[in-house]
Amino acid sequence: MSIAMPAPNQDVIARGPQIVAALQAVLPADAVIHDPQETRAYECDALTAYRCPPLAVVLPRTTAQVAAIMRLCNDMGVPVVPRGAGTSLAGGALPTADCVILGTMRLRDVLEIDTDNRFIRVQSGITNLAVSAELESHGFFYAPDPSSQLACTIAGNIAMNSGGAHCLKYGVTTNNLMGATVVLSTGEIVEMGGPEAGPDGLDMLGLFCGSEGQLGVVTEAILRILPRPEGARPVLIGFGDAEVAGECVANIIRSGVIPVAIEYMDEPCLRAVESFAKAGYPTCNAVLIVEVEGSADEIADQIARIREIADALNPVEFRESRNADEAAKIWKGRKSAFGAMGKLGDYICLDGTVPVGQLPYTLRRIGELSREHGLEVANVFHAGDGNMHPLILFNANQPGDLARAEAFGNDILRLCVEVGGCLTGEHGVGIEKRDLMSTQYAPDDLAIQMEIKDLFDPQWLLNAAKVFPLQASAAHRGRAAE
Amino acid sequence: MSIAMPAPNQDVIARGPQIVAALQAVLPADAVIHDPQETRAYECDALTAYRCPPLAVVLPRTTAQVAAIMRLCNDMGVPVVPRGAGTSLAGGALPTADCVILGTMRLRDVLEIDTDNRFIRVQSGITNLAVSAELESHGFFYAPDPSSQLACTIAGNIAMNSGGAHCLKYGVTTNNLMGATVVLSTGEIVEMGGPEAGPDGLDMLGLFCGSEGQLGVVTEAILRILPRPEGARPVLIGFGDAEVAGECVANIIRSGVIPVAIEYMDEPCLRAVESFAKAGYPTCNAVLIVEVEGSADEIADQIARIREIADALNPVEFRESRNADEAAKIWKGRKSAFGAMGKLGDYICLDGTVPVGQLPYTLRRIGELSREHGLEVANVFHAGDGNMHPLILFNANQPGDLARAEAFGNDILRLCVEVGGCLTGEHGVGIEKRDLMSTQYAPDDLAIQMEIKDLFDPQWLLNAAKVFPLQASAAHRGRAAE
Repeated sequence: MSIAMPAPNQDVIARGPQIVAALQAVLPADAVIHDPQETRAYECDALTAYRCPPLAVVLPRTTAQVAAIMRLCNDMGVPVVPRGAGTSLAGGALPTADCVILGTMRLRDVLEIDTDNRFIRVQSGITNLAVSAELESHGFFYAPDPSSQLACTIAGNIAMNSGGAHCLKYGVTTNNLMGATVVLSTGEIVEMGGPEAGPDGLDMLGLFCGSEGQLGVVTEAILRILPRPEGARPVLIGFGDAEVAGECVANIIRSGVIPVAIEYMDEPCLRAVESFAKAGYPTCNAVLIVEVEGSADEIADQIARIREIADALNPVEFRESRNADEAAKIWKGRKSAFGAMGKLGDYICLDGTVPVGQLPYTLRRIGELSREHGLEVANVFHAGDGNMHPLILFNANQPGDLARAEAFGNDILRLCVEVGGCLTGEHGVGIEKRDLMSTQYAPDDLAIQMEIKDLFDPQWLLNAAKVFPLQASAAHRGRAAE
Repeated sequence: MSIAMPAPNQDVIARGPQIVAALQAVLPADAVIHDPQETRAYECDALTAYRCPPLAVVLPRTTAQVAAIMRLCNDMGVPVVPRGAGTSLAGGALPTADCVILGTMRLRDVLEIDTDNRFIRVQSGITNLAVSAELESHGFFYAPDPSSQLACTIAGNIAMNSGGAHCLKYGVTTNNLMGATVVLSTGEIVEMGGPEAGPDGLDMLGLFCGSEGQLGVVTEAILRILPRPEGARPVLIGFGDAEVAGECVANIIRSGVIPVAIEYMDEPCLRAVESFAKAGYPTCNAVLIVEVEGSADEIADQIARIREIADALNPVEFRESRNADEAAKIWKGRKSAFGAMGKLGDYICLDGTVPVGQLPYTLRRIGELSREHGLEVANVFHAGDGNMHPLILFNANQPGDLARAEAFGNDILRLCVEVGGCLTGEHGVGIEKRDLMSTQYAPDDLAIQMEIKDLFDPQWLLNAAKVFPLQASAAHRGRAAE
């Protein structure tokens, strides 16, 4: 445990029973959980190295119930940590001992599907995959597709501005979010955006998207939907040299072809995947999976252009898929990569982003850092938009190993910022990268962001130990209180 | 003159000479204009019915000079109206008698072109067309293309979140803006975003894009650039029925084809265009121009699908262009439409946006409103994204006619909001639609936007008579002062 959490407010903890009673007075009986046996299920998210049981958990079903909770917690000075499905890899939904977890998973209704105007309106706790499942019979889909899409919620996707493999072509959540119903810290309910793309006034919706539960809670969302393409096809390209694979990615992007996905796996990842999933990948130092979609002609045309670009770089193999089986086989290794790495030992999964042209240099430097820190790293990531997911392997049972892995991770993230990138592509800042925010932002830039936080959440009750460096936010709040 | 402007601050006007002297002390001699003969050139923008000479005009060349101006005006309590090229159709750059106009047109350097990472970094006063001209030899272009692109600046495009015909495929300014250098009201210089797509922290860049000079002044911008497509080709489709043309637009969008542009001209517009430009359009009630781009195969494939959709609706004509001459002929009428309407008399050009599925109903209702108000209206607009530009014809020399045209315009904009759209697609709110913002936003929603304004501009010195309804903002500031 090398990331510090602030000391909980003991006064709030002492008032725990009154707070629970007050919540029970405004919510249905099954919507308030306070038995420590049951709140334990909410003690961590997918950054499982950090755990803390909350004071209570509330599971509202309506926007009005969320408003009642927010009003009550605001009046009683109780911290609130909003939670989607708890799949955050950055500790975005980690509780504090003095907080109420506001879970969105019972807000799961589909409210409206309008294919003419191409949107779906949902309650925010619906899972990402359920949205596309609802749309399937209409011939439409929702583009952002995080790896956790079976479990993760639209509420969490909006909070983290989530991406996924298909974001290269279709953009991340902020590019596909048309409107939202938001409950502010006071309990006030506000509508932002709408089915139209260019609303007038300030872009409040964009501000909320990616704000990691710092400004309010999204209870309903209007999402842009897209007609399903006629078809899609992956190709696999193997390279003897990892940097040349990075060059191939940069050349594809530069050429103007826009695949839906360009996924990258390096040699340590390929080794793990082969022994686990036996996907039959070529023996080489880097594999790219490039998927294109469209009509049969469009697919053939795009693959021809990609082949021309790849051939100029002497790949070990260029494998096309001629049918659904072959396509599934190409994807099989990539889809099992995280599971395969898990078999090798414990890992932390990073989420830095770099300009595509900097991929070759960044990969080389990560290799050097791996040797310096004496820890293995595997790279498997969305290369087309420079969103890297280095997996650092360590042994959780070895004292000090997690701290070493985190130090290595911090070096990689600093490297991402140095080459003109940033600390996160789709996982958010959470607690994981909170204190690195000072690497990315000058004190004045952070101060402005914190002033916006002041405006929406004057008591700093909403997910306050996340995103902003603890020291900077304590100093800021101290000055504001003067 | 039916839109009210607030009374200027007489104290500031009285201190005019000191303010000018203070500006001259921090700027080069040619950067401060105060002779009434010369400031007259800045008394209006493209909403020429409204005029007011400013106290002074400053024309800085660097971010540091902008910071000095902002610091000085903040200290002396002087209102500042930022101005791009003054092409706003909504009065976004209209001066007040107590203001300093901060013109960006001398901030016009290209600072960096990076085709590998697909961005260009420019000073904000460069014109929109100059950006694409700079990129031409590299084989790239900048997508947003407002009709005024020969004159309008990137600074103005960012302030208004401008669009253009090509925005159907490539999005508006906010989708193509990667970073900005911003000077705040205090003179503080802040960097927002960067060459990477998903920066961590709050989305300050999105908040600034479209904020119409309410929050600060953008002095440099990092813009996403795209490789030029291999080719582009328009088709012209004529319909006997205006509503069926609207249906055709909705069907094309629904099918998943994404043309770069779908432009719509109705019968009054076609009549004006024919007598002015003699473009040889078919005699009918509505013409669509649909442009697609890509490789030769992609173009042929898309046109075939569009023909299939159009044929099902019995068009009067479906005209393909086989070469550059024929393509230019198809575009000729559309490009001369505003000029042609100008020959018919005075007009105001509106800018409401509606969901594409609501186009047929909205067009019918606009026809009914035209008869009720006894004023002719012509419709020529970007139909693919529902961004309408109804032109209301009136006689500026007839007393009361402008007020009648404005009343008709307000009815059309209310209609846009009613059907689920909004007050502006790309022109901004300015003074034109300022008081209609209450139609679109509930008081609480407006209050939150004004609190953000308070945060960045506590004295409300930046372009304060625009965007927010005068009454609502006066009440808000009154309460805040209590």
